[in-house]
Amino acid sequence: MRGPSPIVPVILAGGSGTRLWPVSRDSLPKQFQVLTGSHTLYQQTLMRVSDRALFAAPLVLTHEDFRFFARRQAAEIGMDVTVALEPMRRDSGPALLAAALIAQRLHGEGCLVLALASDHVVLDEPLFLDACRAGAQAAAQGRIVTFGIAPTEPSTAYGYIRPGAQIGTQAGAGGARTVAAFVEKPDLATATRYLAEGYLWNSGNFCFPAAVLIEEATRFEPSMVAAVTEAVETAGEDLGFIKLDARAFADAPAKSIDYAVMEHTRRAAVVEGRFRWSDVGSWDALHELAEGDAAGNATRGPVTLLDSRNSYLHSDGPLIAGIGLDNLSVVATEDAVLVMPIDRAQDVKGLVAQLKSERHNAASEHLKAHRPWGTYQTICRGERFLVKKIVVEPGGRLSLQKHHHRAEHWIVVKGTAEVTLDGRVFEVRENESTYLPQGGVHRLANPGEIPLELIEVQTGAYLGEDDIVRLEDAYNRA
Amino acid sequence: MRGPSPIVPVILAGGSGTRLWPVSRDSLPKQFQVLTGSHTLYQQTLMRVSDRALFAAPLVLTHEDFRFFARRQAAEIGMDVTVALEPMRRDSGPALLAAALIAQRLHGEGCLVLALASDHVVLDEPLFLDACRAGAQAAAQGRIVTFGIAPTEPSTAYGYIRPGAQIGTQAGAGGARTVAAFVEKPDLATATRYLAEGYLWNSGNFCFPAAVLIEEATRFEPSMVAAVTEAVETAGEDLGFIKLDARAFADAPAKSIDYAVMEHTRRAAVVEGRFRWSDVGSWDALHELAEGDAAGNATRGPVTLLDSRNSYLHSDGPLIAGIGLDNLSVVATEDAVLVMPIDRAQDVKGLVAQLKSERHNAASEHLKAHRPWGTYQTICRGERFLVKKIVVEPGGRLSLQKHHHRAEHWIVVKGTAEVTLDGRVFEVRENESTYLPQGGVHRLANPGEIPLELIEVQTGAYLGEDDIVRLEDAYNRA
Repeated sequence: MRGPSPIVPVILAGGSGTRLWPVSRDSLPKQFQVLTGSHTLYQQTLMRVSDRALFAAPLVLTHEDFRFFARRQAAEIGMDVTVALEPMRRDSGPALLAAALIAQRLHGEGCLVLALASDHVVLDEPLFLDACRAGAQAAAQGRIVTFGIAPTEPSTAYGYIRPGAQIGTQAGAGGARTVAAFVEKPDLATATRYLAEGYLWNSGNFCFPAAVLIEEATRFEPSMVAAVTEAVETAGEDLGFIKLDARAFADAPAKSIDYAVMEHTRRAAVVEGRFRWSDVGSWDALHELAEGDAAGNATRGPVTLLDSRNSYLHSDGPLIAGIGLDNLSVVATEDAVLVMPIDRAQDVKGLVAQLKSERHNAASEHLKAHRPWGTYQTICRGERFLVKKIVVEPGGRLSLQKHHHRAEHWIVVKGTAEVTLDGRVFEVRENESTYLPQGGVHRLANPGEIPLELIEVQTGAYLGEDDIVRLEDAYNRA
Repeated sequence: MRGPSPIVPVILAGGSGTRLWPVSRDSLPKQFQVLTGSHTLYQQTLMRVSDRALFAAPLVLTHEDFRFFARRQAAEIGMDVTVALEPMRRDSGPALLAAALIAQRLHGEGCLVLALASDHVVLDEPLFLDACRAGAQAAAQGRIVTFGIAPTEPSTAYGYIRPGAQIGTQAGAGGARTVAAFVEKPDLATATRYLAEGYLWNSGNFCFPAAVLIEEATRFEPSMVAAVTEAVETAGEDLGFIKLDARAFADAPAKSIDYAVMEHTRRAAVVEGRFRWSDVGSWDALHELAEGDAAGNATRGPVTLLDSRNSYLHSDGPLIAGIGLDNLSVVATEDAVLVMPIDRAQDVKGLVAQLKSERHNAASEHLKAHRPWGTYQTICRGERFLVKKIVVEPGGRLSLQKHHHRAEHWIVVKGTAEVTLDGRVFEVRENESTYLPQGGVHRLANPGEIPLELIEVQTGAYLGEDDIVRLEDAYNRA
């Protein structure tokens, strides 16, 4: 069906939504969270394009802060990805343009790009692949294809597309049509009319020849193309990441691909996806996606309900017990609980803004902190001590460092640690411990093949994260 | 005013309610929890009778499981108490009878007993003391005085008392009256009528001469008196606790003092307490007691609300964030969250029964476990390891013990540990650690004057609490 050009999946994973707080936070946003099933949304997106007969290896565009998540979560599912880093957020126009330029370098001038959001839920995978094939077919004919979804309800949360005439000879809804109009999120009455008139939801996923996107963008946004081209041409390489040049990329106007190109180009087309889809924009979407019980309750994690209905209960840890709940959302993590009527899900963003202004840690930080080498989590805090669980991924190396105000005890509970202390290098194995005196120059690394887990007990008068002198760092943070 | 007989406060602290789950659990019930102010209800009760010009040192009746809480929480507020242990629950009749008999032994045959529940909230302390004085005055005239509370609403949660004629010459509501009738918890219509007719809530607190209670109980419940007298006469002494004899006490019929004595005796009197009072029977009571904000919300702990009203938010740890709440209760602890409309507070008991049947740990156990020597809390759990924070009170000694399946690392973060390991005794100080190999016979003790805090990291294939061989124990648990 499609030509010889490879389809290069481009995964857009730089977003940082707060509408799914307390699970999604600035420090680890929703695409990297497990919200449905047993994989993160980002992993589910990668798995959706894992058929190498149809797709090339994915290219991931993400923000610098998330680069190690993007790589690690891909590795967890055995996917080899190229990760390009946006030095700052410039909306989807510059991101897709950069992706098109990088895809051409990696896969040739004639490659097709399938641009997918990393934080959407797609059910019915075969129907998704059908749509990809149809999109690629239209793209191969020079079209910039956007995927529309047949609405199941008059949603006011999505933009809509009014499809035009069939393109080419292929009949049936699987074929591409022209785009008569893109329309903004409507009110309920308008949405109801759109539903009756055959409009489609605009899913924000695309398929296009890299060259055509660049050509059309050059026509409508020449300064964007100039800036992004320079950012790609002068991109650095850092630990295997493609690092777009910050100064050049900063010059690109922040515009969505819809505003920058789609609303102007004559080469737009729409392919109707027949799969069930959600952009998981808020907690009510997860309630809708979940298969509820007879009373309409959907639960995730440890939940016990008495006499409750139409409610969404989601726990990442604590037991949630509900009595007499109706149309309520309860989302609990280890350090925060959100309670609201389901129809107030749109107000979470404002709540998080308030929590930030009140300087609650839980507003933007997770208890577990992610670092290039692995993770750490404070599990106990006292007056003059702090206990952390540290996980170092295989091959991970913390910086060579020292602390002025604290001493550290390390007890290895899994794997093997390679410890450097004042020039001496030695191994600490499972069920062994070592002591790092205040001021000692030390480094922790995992030389093994399995994650290293250790318990760190810090003691001292000052235990802030900022009491660290990095003398050398494998991740260029020194 | 009162005669030379001392007033002996008897604090009944053996209850184990679940209506305030998840804060109150079998392992540490509500009287030992901080629910209002900064002290536990038990401590607040003790503090209420701390005026030694008016009251003798308190006698505490509690269940064996709670003996160390009863002593430690009293010590925390500098109160010296005698603690008598009920070997099993036999309701308030046998408990008060035992208290009367013990009070006579400690303070003479003529002593007066002021029997107080340990889990009530009393506001307006001076009015409480006024009522105590009035009660003691009537008791000194041979009366068994029950304290009635002027109802503020037609509550269906309390039993009522219909007061009779004034006793003696003292006029005014502070004086005692006879009891015309005790009546059960009414329905709303009846409660409304009671309110209009001047009935009082039955608070379940009493004042009586020890000898009179024993005399009247002998008249109406001779077998109870025989059993309890024997249990007191053959009581053992264990680590300074008075331990009622289990076999004898088991023979006492389980009856409340109301059923056993008050409803039959001609010596009953009622003194009206003018203080604000609650038996804190359920979460809605705490909402009523709290001073709400302008929108009627009462909060405790970290809480942020948007657009919410008439709600009760109580956190012992996690941040609670609510949007659009109305008449909702949210109670969050580190391991469980309860959400319900405020008017469903009576259903918590049934919920806990369900949680127990589903074998949720959080149904009856707290994360922090209390032991005679102090506390421990699991702060991190992994596949082959477990991390605990252990606090040993000054003078506390764990049992001499060994584990078949686990090794332990101890890192002292505060205070000084005296460690016994295979016959050797040594000290481990702040910021030092030691290692206890699998099978090593060891003991931990705190020889110092401040609490000893340490982090224990257990490693091994099996880490259950039951892998413990106690060879010797200061608290007779070996």
